[in-house]
Amino acid sequence: MADHGARPDDGGRTDGIPMIPALRWDEPPEGPVLVLLDQTRLPAEESELVCTDASALVAAIRSLAVRGAPLLGIAGAYGVALAAARGFDVEQAAAALAGARPTAANLETGVRRAKDAYDAALAAGGDAAAAALRAARALHREDAEASAVMAERGLALLDEWRPGGGHRILTHCNTGELVSGGEGTAFAVALAAHRAGRLRRLWVDETRPLLQGARLTAWEAARQRMAYTLLADDAAGSLFAAGEVDAVVVGADRIAADGSVANKVGTYPLAVLARYHHVPFVVVAPWTTVDVGTPDGASIEVEQRAGREVTEIGGAVVAPLGTQAYNPAFDVTPPELVTALVTERGVLSPVTAEGVATLEGRA
Amino acid sequence: MADHGARPDDGGRTDGIPMIPALRWDEPPEGPVLVLLDQTRLPAEESELVCTDASALVAAIRSLAVRGAPLLGIAGAYGVALAAARGFDVEQAAAALAGARPTAANLETGVRRAKDAYDAALAAGGDAAAAALRAARALHREDAEASAVMAERGLALLDEWRPGGGHRILTHCNTGELVSGGEGTAFAVALAAHRAGRLRRLWVDETRPLLQGARLTAWEAARQRMAYTLLADDAAGSLFAAGEVDAVVVGADRIAADGSVANKVGTYPLAVLARYHHVPFVVVAPWTTVDVGTPDGASIEVEQRAGREVTEIGGAVVAPLGTQAYNPAFDVTPPELVTALVTERGVLSPVTAEGVATLEGRA
Repeated sequence: MADHGARPDDGGRTDGIPMIPALRWDEPPEGPVLVLLDQTRLPAEESELVCTDASALVAAIRSLAVRGAPLLGIAGAYGVALAAARGFDVEQAAAALAGARPTAANLETGVRRAKDAYDAALAAGGDAAAAALRAARALHREDAEASAVMAERGLALLDEWRPGGGHRILTHCNTGELVSGGEGTAFAVALAAHRAGRLRRLWVDETRPLLQGARLTAWEAARQRMAYTLLADDAAGSLFAAGEVDAVVVGADRIAADGSVANKVGTYPLAVLARYHHVPFVVVAPWTTVDVGTPDGASIEVEQRAGREVTEIGGAVVAPLGTQAYNPAFDVTPPELVTALVTERGVLSPVTAEGVATLEGRA
Repeated sequence: MADHGARPDDGGRTDGIPMIPALRWDEPPEGPVLVLLDQTRLPAEESELVCTDASALVAAIRSLAVRGAPLLGIAGAYGVALAAARGFDVEQAAAALAGARPTAANLETGVRRAKDAYDAALAAGGDAAAAALRAARALHREDAEASAVMAERGLALLDEWRPGGGHRILTHCNTGELVSGGEGTAFAVALAAHRAGRLRRLWVDETRPLLQGARLTAWEAARQRMAYTLLADDAAGSLFAAGEVDAVVVGADRIAADGSVANKVGTYPLAVLARYHHVPFVVVAPWTTVDVGTPDGASIEVEQRAGREVTEIGGAVVAPLGTQAYNPAFDVTPPELVTALVTERGVLSPVTAEGVATLEGRA
């Protein structure tokens, strides 16, 4: 564990990869494990969580120790590989992992990919556990590659809209290297702008109730020495009104066939504000987030989480006892509010069902 | 101090007035005092804060121990009376009180009213301290009367828009008896609906960063046994999208001559969401909140508060050290987004400079 009260200017930090990677496969003498950076303890502590079986990983997914759509896909795939390597019931492990949280499409996709590889190797009489691990590693690598492509395309869009501009980007939740095989989705675009000297300001929504913006995005931005400012989610309106936002750039948890985007709760209000203020609203997500099996926004299952996440903060009760809370983890933004969808397969602008179908065909 | 973990159904509570009033004038043998309910400690504790001079009151206003536009006006008036009764420099006290926080118009208005009464009595050779106290008491009483009138008019509007309806009202910040000589502004409308059996649900925004919704509005709603549900501010968009909001009803801190409304930060995004979803957006405020000396929204001074209110929650640091935060206490909603302005002098719908001028003339 290390103290992570990192100031943007306190020197001595390695830019880029977290000191403990968000997720890594390891093979100590006792048998293979999946080692996670426990994101619930950031930014106060960098501590590892070692999963020796799929049920420990399911618990880590539910508690949000490991989180973020792309990383959930990678974790799900490694979870299947772990069950296989450890000789557990792979069928059961895959089902438990895929159902650990309902909204992120990547989780199902990642689990299925490793499970399909396992099944195929089993049918062919090969080393099924090794096949599942190969599939997980391939997904991990591909996600990193997708991240790099999306970052480049996202920045190109921003530059097109504001040639020569220093971009003031508003983002929500956490979408950097903590959720990715690479440098992330939306955050990777801001990071690319920063490296190119064209990030004027990254506005970081704190992202209630779990404060992924304050705890995680601010931490990533500080490590990268980006110009960032934190705000309470409900202060974003003032930034738009003052003309301080050039683009909203966010990630996604599931994108339906019609282009509807489920993302962390609080995304939809930003899309409405962006439209009202004629500011581009950009979604950045790898194709593993797209689920053409979900026809539209209304068909996306939105996870409802415990009211306690709202009525308590850091263990302290902030509301009267007995207070009920409405606590959806995600909301859904209709495609007509999305200026552009940036994926590694291409950019859709406007976002339409036809466009999604076209890119889906481009495997 | 009493425990206030009140469940809506736990019995034994007196509906209505808080156990300790938000503010009261007292005259113990040691000399007059202004006794405040310390709102920073709610809902965990009901404790009193005794002010023996204006500077203690200024500190209480700055720390938000006493808060809410109408109550700030009343507190300011009593503060002048206190300085006069205790023989302090009334001129100096009045200036310090009026400048304690910049945005709420009522504070200035209340201070000026007591100061004018003091000055007039002094000039006439009367008991100036008694005159200031009479003025404060009159303002206190008038605010209670205004509250009752606004509650009735606000409910009449909702009933007109949804005849026979059970109203689902979304509110932001805290606007009940904790901020008023009576039962409040926006909250009083919801309470009137509740008493009439026509409140289906009060949606309570938690109101980051200081959680006035979670700490105070939920507490008031629980005491009144209203059907209420708390939510993170950024979840309001999901309620609108699901058609779960019939009206947004909020208070105000300053209303400019053109009808622009400064209110707790997070109000403006609700106004934009309400417009996008064709939901009425109603502002409820006594005329003491209207300042025709402020021509428009751009002229309203918005208080910027310490970033620490965002980077720390209940003393716990949630963001990396060195993180800067953007923390405006208020935002400004332009009149064209306000469906109706409900005051004790009348209802404006639409809200226009002409309408404000007409009601201003109706003293």
